[in-house]
Amino acid sequence: MQAVELKHAYRLLNHGPTVLVGSAHAGRRNVMAAAWAMPLDFDTPKIAVVIDKATLTRELIEASGVLSINVPCVAQRELVVATGTLSGKEHKDKLSRCGVTTHAAPQTGAPLVDGCMAQLECRVLPATVHVAGPHDLILAEVLGAWADERVFSQGRWHFEDAPAELRSLHHVAGGHFYATGEPVA
Amino acid sequence: MQAVELKHAYRLLNHGPTVLVGSAHAGRRNVMAAAWAMPLDFDTPKIAVVIDKATLTRELIEASGVLSINVPCVAQRELVVATGTLSGKEHKDKLSRCGVTTHAAPQTGAPLVDGCMAQLECRVLPATVHVAGPHDLILAEVLGAWADERVFSQGRWHFEDAPAELRSLHHVAGGHFYATGEPVA
Repeated sequence: MQAVELKHAYRLLNHGPTVLVGSAHAGRRNVMAAAWAMPLDFDTPKIAVVIDKATLTRELIEASGVLSINVPCVAQRELVVATGTLSGKEHKDKLSRCGVTTHAAPQTGAPLVDGCMAQLECRVLPATVHVAGPHDLILAEVLGAWADERVFSQGRWHFEDAPAELRSLHHVAGGHFYATGEPVA
Repeated sequence: MQAVELKHAYRLLNHGPTVLVGSAHAGRRNVMAAAWAMPLDFDTPKIAVVIDKATLTRELIEASGVLSINVPCVAQRELVVATGTLSGKEHKDKLSRCGVTTHAAPQTGAPLVDGCMAQLECRVLPATVHVAGPHDLILAEVLGAWADERVFSQGRWHFEDAPAELRSLHHVAGGHFYATGEPVA
């Protein structure tokens, strides 16, 4: 993984991939799949993501004020479905069951998901207080970003130069996805 | 175009396509491309979209309280780039220059973009007042939705059964896109 310039961090999410959201607080850790995430600003980079208030992820984000956004690849499809299905509240061993390993982001300690093509560490923004209650919407500033140089270099995705399992996933419904396709120019 | 059940409307955006935002007020009309849009809720369906406060689109949405979200296809790539580049403020003939035609949505009058694979008419939600100023974020309820039955039927996209020009666009940066790719199951 290579560090991504913060001014290019929005590009990691600009094409609308399904993501994994990492969260941690007081020794608890979780990772869940989320299809509803997008960039919110370029520079300073910010993101928006919808996280249901019934989830452990939401509890951990509210307690810690930080989260990670990770872009999984086609090779991780089963892991994505599993983290989107199993509840971290019900299964204390959710991450090991789902085959997820993480490492702590340098500035926030948020868990970055190993094997993903991109990872962003984020801190929750103040305006979240107005939209988290009514709309489950979390707004956050991106403090650090990394990407797999096989598919992201010089500030751009280059999926067409890499193996097919290194494409993002785009969730349709019920565990069905489309992979990112061919370049259109 | 076929009407889409409101409970399935989120699926039109769930895979993260680049969209066209339609707006109108007092005889003025605009359409602009936006990559930062996502579902916000299932049922009642809601969406979130980032619209810069410097744009005509933002003015028209704030004046009318309504907007449309449209999902263009690969065949419309040039139109998408043009509507994302030309300013509606500077060019009063922007829509004809860009080759865009629209028709008014039944409940809101918001302009739906002809030739798109999906169209949603939306009304701005009250919580927008908290996030439009600081973050250019518009939250809206979906009141009606339509999709091209060649690619969306029984509540699901079926791109793999249609010609390649009927795929969504996913903007990377600078007018470069990926098409939606193959199913991953």
